[in-house]
Amino acid sequence: MSVGIEGSKVIEPKATGPRDGRDRLLAGARKLLAEKGYAGMELRDVAAAGKAPRGSIYHHFPGGKRHDTIERALGELGVKQTLRMFGKVFSRRAADHPERIGCPVAAAALARPEDPALAAAATAAFQSWERPIAAALEREGVGAEKAETFAGLVVSTIEGALLRARAAGSQAPLDSAVTGLEQALDALVATG
Amino acid sequence: MSVGIEGSKVIEPKATGPRDGRDRLLAGARKLLAEKGYAGMELRDVAAAGKAPRGSIYHHFPGGKRHDTIERALGELGVKQTLRMFGKVFSRRAADHPERIGCPVAAAALARPEDPALAAAATAAFQSWERPIAAALEREGVGAEKAETFAGLVVSTIEGALLRARAAGSQAPLDSAVTGLEQALDALVATG
Repeated sequence: MSVGIEGSKVIEPKATGPRDGRDRLLAGARKLLAEKGYAGMELRDVAAAGKAPRGSIYHHFPGGKRHDTIERALGELGVKQTLRMFGKVFSRRAADHPERIGCPVAAAALARPEDPALAAAATAAFQSWERPIAAALEREGVGAEKAETFAGLVVSTIEGALLRARAAGSQAPLDSAVTGLEQALDALVATG
Repeated sequence: MSVGIEGSKVIEPKATGPRDGRDRLLAGARKLLAEKGYAGMELRDVAAAGKAPRGSIYHHFPGGKRHDTIERALGELGVKQTLRMFGKVFSRRAADHPERIGCPVAAAALARPEDPALAAAATAAFQSWERPIAAALEREGVGAEKAETFAGLVVSTIEGALLRARAAGSQAPLDSAVTGLEQALDALVATG
């Protein structure tokens, strides 16, 4: 009953399977999120915090800290193509590994009321994805208030769609959500 | 680390606090969802399945099975006012009980891969909310394909916003998501 990051499970460093490697990294990410928050968390420290081999971080989280990737894509591709690209990446991963669908930050989000610091770190992560989306929308001519609201809509929709994709064991809800966001974005830009 | 419905916790009928009453009903709902699916689940059976007093169902789930409420509201108020109304209901509940924010169906959604039948029941519930929204949008002049996509967007957005509200311990992400959906709906209707 959790997505990605397990409750308060302690990962012992003796087992070595691929599932275990991922679990150790997630345990490390959880520890650092709680200690330093999302902004202060360095990806290179995650492996050490989870007692996992350093190189494993690039194998298990090829996208790195997501908001860096989001900012770069938005700058190079604009909002619509970035949405489409992220949608394709998530969708391909979901199709390849339906049993792993889910956002590690969503698991941290569910830590309230037991662990409010971890839940707050999740909120900071969500906001770190929203800010560059809102800024890019403004650059594309959307008013500041609408841009901020739409950026929040994007993040909530993707989180909800990941949850639904997990339930369905399929990428279909993700594909549909991205189409819905593209449609909403087109209409928003057309109406200012 | 779960929203609403607890993993495989067995609720013994001896404790009697209000928290326990809610837990028993959720255990009952979980059992029926797994056995009969969402469509076949009768609200009046939930209390019995969870060994909870029959009247408690109306106390803890005053909205009843949500898709009935959605259909009635859509027929009487139209899509935009229904969105606004549900947004206000969720927001008020979240403000009153920030520790309880979350959708019981979202918890069932996370049951995959351990319990695929329960996860499938969650998908059926999500779809049962989508269908009347899509139908109402069509009645309001939106084309069939766009209506279906937007209905999916609504459900994914609300689920994601409930998750974020849980993380934030506040109704703010819900309020923002509903504003975003209203804005997207206005733009959709304006552009056909």
